Amino acid sequence: MKAKRWFSPPVTAVLALVLMVGVIFFTSCRDGGDAAPAATTGLTQDAQAIANERGLSPADVTAALKTYVPSGQHDDYIMFSSGGHAGQVFVIGMPSMRLLKTIGVFTPEPWQGWGYGDMNSMNVLREGSRNPDEHIITWGDTHHPALSETDGDYDGEYLFINDKAHARIAVISLKDFKTKQIVPNPIALSNHGGAFVTPNTEWVIEGGHYAAPLSGDYAPLSEYEAQYRGMITLWKFDREIGRLVQDDSFAIELPPYWQDLCDAGKLASDGWVFCNSFNTEMAKGGVEKGNLPFESGVSQYDTDLLHVIHLERAVEVAQNGGTVEMNGLSVIPLETAISEGLLYFIPEPKSPHGVDVSPTGEYIVVAGKLDPHVTIYGMTEIKEAIERGNFDYDEFGVPILDFDETVVARVELGLGPLHTQFGPDGYAYTSLFLDSAVSRWTLGGAYADLNDDPEWEMVGKISVHYNIGHLTVAHGDTVNPHGKYLVALNKWAVDRFQNVGPLLPQNFQLIDISQPGDQMQLLYDMPIGVGEPHYAQIISADLLDPWEVYPEVGWDAQTNTISPNATFQGEERIVRDGNNVEIFMTSVRSRFVPEHVEIRQGDKVTWHITNVERAYDAIHGIAVPEYNIHISLEPGETVTFEFEATRPGVFSYYCTEFCSALHLEMKGYLLVQP
Amino acid sequence: MKAKRWFSPPVTAVLALVLMVGVIFFTSCRDGGDAAPAATTGLTQDAQAIANERGLSPADVTAALKTYVPSGQHDDYIMFSSGGHAGQVFVIGMPSMRLLKTIGVFTPEPWQGWGYGDMNSMNVLREGSRNPDEHIITWGDTHHPALSETDGDYDGEYLFINDKAHARIAVISLKDFKTKQIVPNPIALSNHGGAFVTPNTEWVIEGGHYAAPLSGDYAPLSEYEAQYRGMITLWKFDREIGRLVQDDSFAIELPPYWQDLCDAGKLASDGWVFCNSFNTEMAKGGVEKGNLPFESGVSQYDTDLLHVIHLERAVEVAQNGGTVEMNGLSVIPLETAISEGLLYFIPEPKSPHGVDVSPTGEYIVVAGKLDPHVTIYGMTEIKEAIERGNFDYDEFGVPILDFDETVVARVELGLGPLHTQFGPDGYAYTSLFLDSAVSRWTLGGAYADLNDDPEWEMVGKISVHYNIGHLTVAHGDTVNPHGKYLVALNKWAVDRFQNVGPLLPQNFQLIDISQPGDQMQLLYDMPIGVGEPHYAQIISADLLDPWEVYPEVGWDAQTNTISPNATFQGEERIVRDGNNVEIFMTSVRSRFVPEHVEIRQGDKVTWHITNVERAYDAIHGIAVPEYNIHISLEPGETVTFEFEATRPGVFSYYCTEFCSALHLEMKGYLLVQP
Repeated sequence: MKAKRWFSPPVTAVLALVLMVGVIFFTSCRDGGDAAPAATTGLTQDAQAIANERGLSPADVTAALKTYVPSGQHDDYIMFSSGGHAGQVFVIGMPSMRLLKTIGVFTPEPWQGWGYGDMNSMNVLREGSRNPDEHIITWGDTHHPALSETDGDYDGEYLFINDKAHARIAVISLKDFKTKQIVPNPIALSNHGGAFVTPNTEWVIEGGHYAAPLSGDYAPLSEYEAQYRGMITLWKFDREIGRLVQDDSFAIELPPYWQDLCDAGKLASDGWVFCNSFNTEMAKGGVEKGNLPFESGVSQYDTDLLHVIHLERAVEVAQNGGTVEMNGLSVIPLETAISEGLLYFIPEPKSPHGVDVSPTGEYIVVAGKLDPHVTIYGMTEIKEAIERGNFDYDEFGVPILDFDETVVARVELGLGPLHTQFGPDGYAYTSLFLDSAVSRWTLGGAYADLNDDPEWEMVGKISVHYNIGHLTVAHGDTVNPHGKYLVALNKWAVDRFQNVGPLLPQNFQLIDISQPGDQMQLLYDMPIGVGEPHYAQIISADLLDPWEVYPEVGWDAQTNTISPNATFQGEERIVRDGNNVEIFMTSVRSRFVPEHVEIRQGDKVTWHITNVERAYDAIHGIAVPEYNIHISLEPGETVTFEFEATRPGVFSYYCTEFCSALHLEMKGYLLVQP
Repeated sequence: MKAKRWFSPPVTAVLALVLMVGVIFFTSCRDGGDAAPAATTGLTQDAQAIANERGLSPADVTAALKTYVPSGQHDDYIMFSSGGHAGQVFVIGMPSMRLLKTIGVFTPEPWQGWGYGDMNSMNVLREGSRNPDEHIITWGDTHHPALSETDGDYDGEYLFINDKAHARIAVISLKDFKTKQIVPNPIALSNHGGAFVTPNTEWVIEGGHYAAPLSGDYAPLSEYEAQYRGMITLWKFDREIGRLVQDDSFAIELPPYWQDLCDAGKLASDGWVFCNSFNTEMAKGGVEKGNLPFESGVSQYDTDLLHVIHLERAVEVAQNGGTVEMNGLSVIPLETAISEGLLYFIPEPKSPHGVDVSPTGEYIVVAGKLDPHVTIYGMTEIKEAIERGNFDYDEFGVPILDFDETVVARVELGLGPLHTQFGPDGYAYTSLFLDSAVSRWTLGGAYADLNDDPEWEMVGKISVHYNIGHLTVAHGDTVNPHGKYLVALNKWAVDRFQNVGPLLPQNFQLIDISQPGDQMQLLYDMPIGVGEPHYAQIISADLLDPWEVYPEVGWDAQTNTISPNATFQGEERIVRDGNNVEIFMTSVRSRFVPEHVEIRQGDKVTWHITNVERAYDAIHGIAVPEYNIHISLEPGETVTFEFEATRPGVFSYYCTEFCSALHLEMKGYLLVQP
């Protein structure tokens, strides 16, 4: 029997209409306080009562007020943080320290539809794998994000990031915050000195890490000195197409020390690149055989070797045929690099980790992590020493400049100095891993007049919690540092947060550096329980100009043109050609068209779907069960995915983004006949 | 020539020793204000100046002070949020609204080593795939987390969560915040009414969603009424082993309406389960053929059918052989469910979405999303109506109780009511999707004396931004609601945050509900740019008792015993048997032992690694390039991974968690001879 309908609630026709056309009511409530008790009359009385009740100290109160961003207001700065072995990039608002977005880079991420069928993402991941027919690599160990620069300052257009685990560089567009390209390095299997950009982003730097044969072939450790090598690769960036171009890129062969971090010169040092190295001992480990373990073997010498690379000259050499080809990449051999005068070493204290170029480019700051000082080299002094030509040589014949002739200052900071950033006021900031602290110290020379403190001296230190790795200051590695905020990227959190099991979050700590001298205030602890970030960069939010929606309906996010498979309303169709089925679908609140996809087992399905929405935030997703497919459809976007219908059955494809009151009804049936 | 070592910085022997043994210096700086300017004398003066400078209103200031958690102090509550189609669970501290952790559930996540080689995780993902030999499913659409309960309140031991896209339930242990089990439903391909638990977690509820043949076979839509079905599955949970046990579980066949959300009865309604349904119209869509689209076809009737399931009786029927076996699961056929009196329907206004049982279990609150009211059914009235037996019947013969006889109240709230939560004070809170608001209203009956407002009446409303789906209150679906905090899980953010490209974050808004009547204060906007959460639950932090480190060295996180492959220091070894190579390795700051793994191309490698650390936060990771392997090693843990060495070469395995000053030196060479 058919059940009668017992009851008719007062749903008006107007309401029904509203629901069907998907109109959204927005209420304007930006002050965040409409519902606050009317008795809220001012700060002193109410606020003090809350502070007392919650046990907030005066410093806590000022920290709260310096970091709180009211509902509906925007953060002033945006931090792009590496995600460590999560393989992603984190986008964080400052000073609120809120995670605005995770960008899928090396690791598939289904919310974004990254690597779950979308052919654009599948192709990026495939092309980013060294041996794609054997393995598609689906994670990375991201370390160092690099915002694109114009005239040495961030321009907000692109972001680059390395994958240490597999020696790769990714390119992300800041128009749609999507990864556009992943390039595996043809001659290295691990990297560390990337990504860093030259002042106008002509080149993206990728320095190697653990030495191995550049060919990728096997060689025993007994042939380490002969066959193992380091390298640095200079990737040519084509800003027009937003891609790294391997054919215009080149590498330089280096001795088998372990190259570490790099930085590009700027202004006074424009046209040069600097890289640290460690394991100049060429230790080979093997503690199980009675050898020194790596940790000791690599730490025997009191100095390692700062690599000073004359990039301008290297480009000339590469462009004039001074390269050999290895695995499809042009490589300047080590002996050519020496003979052409584009590679120099300088001793650097011990097991260095950070090398950072000051805002004017005049100073190169190195922190030897087993030395309590930072060591500051002068670009003028380096050029003069090269000019003089009074070299020592390492065992590979690379000229070594004199330490004393090139160093302009050393500043004692404490235990375990790692990385340095800069403010606008002549201050530099160095992380101290073993001290768990950030030190503030003064640059000298042309910077000396920018503050009232004596030059080349530590003027302040603030504890962080715990074991800081990198630190970052707003625009703190550019020609135009902003200061204001510093973030300590702490490696250990221990007891700082509620225990969430044996795998603990990292801890980003926000520090106010707007006051001079020894005044630095810890403002905020941000747990990072989604990865282990290394470096981060902070850009003024007003320099970003992302799309709100894709420029036109039918947009292909990879080609930045209208997709040939764009489908407009009324043009939806299913086309069969033998066993090949091609679907042209649209999505709009609150339906997919078509709603029935009837195919046969064994069909090869190519499915195009266009989100025809133009409203900001009118996102849809489509899940296709059984075939591990999830697609995110941003307004205007056309996406293609493919699968072979191996199993018969009745599958529900449905919208995964809660798009309207009738979102749950936005589905269709995929019917696969046996 | 050998380069001389020019320079010896004053690294003391003590420092060197410190580095080698990996001691960490912790500074105690919990007050977060050590470095604050000495001039900070009190709230009135300094704080007001900061508020003025930053343009903070009095309401902003109180909101800031109510949410700020000083450095080193812990949040009072922990929210477990679904991650939507990210496939994960988010762990968020409250009131600070900081993301403490993402738990890898259905989606591999390399930071956690989830699904990147660790055989425990690989097996969970494999067993969680319906057809693992064809596809391992590597994402999910998580909707409804359910904390385990004892006597109707959260006990902090386990968390369950559903995957709508593939009809699966996952089990997470809150000792180590790791996923222990994923079970695909044998008779359904999508779910929505899960996970919900009975008051002592004997049963985990999984209601279906989009109807399809329970067999999983193909059937055309023309046979919808005959062959398509809904279902609800009751998974038996064995708390001792922390697993769902399929052999002790059962399902109930239901008509091919689309079952939606469910909730377990408690106290007055203990032993009962309630599920919404929509598409009682049995619309089949097909707008491309001139049919009504699903959005309209599913919304034709003024009422749908609340499913009232007598769980106690169903258990008896299932245990007494009243089931048939389908795909390995015991299923109570629909006709048995009817004849045994364990299934009843009640009309519910229109296209309902939420069904929520009040703290005493007496009231069942349904929100019809196309009806401006919430409808409250009484358990007493339902039982009386069943007793009277004055039924109507649907076309499948299911008895339908009378609407007027079972409804105790209806409260008009606004447009698009979805979900309801409860406070300790007789208030209920319902999300209004179309109004973009949270309404507060009063329960009647035994709850009427708990506040000064009239019963069954809306007493307050607060705007949210925008388009709220679920909402959650601390312990707000238990027998013991805490109130205090409410979080609005908003689906659209639009302009609330700095633009980060066309894929926008969701917006969690924290609301203070500690004051009575119409006083509710919006405190905080938390962007969620890592997924699209649906439901969340908030537990008092002191109810959680996770491990800081694994109980003993050699711990297998899946079996909760010492692994047979646990390796202790001094026992490290590599064992070859033909082409099979088995590695027994340890990790400790700052070395792997062994440091050389020399194998041959074609070898099948089984690699066991034990993190012998006992210190809190002494985590290591191990990356094995080329084979897509990343493992997280928490203190004490033993992990096994496997690969076939298909390619010759020199690969660097290394530690991915920055564990000490000599972390970069913690590596080894994997040498694969051709």
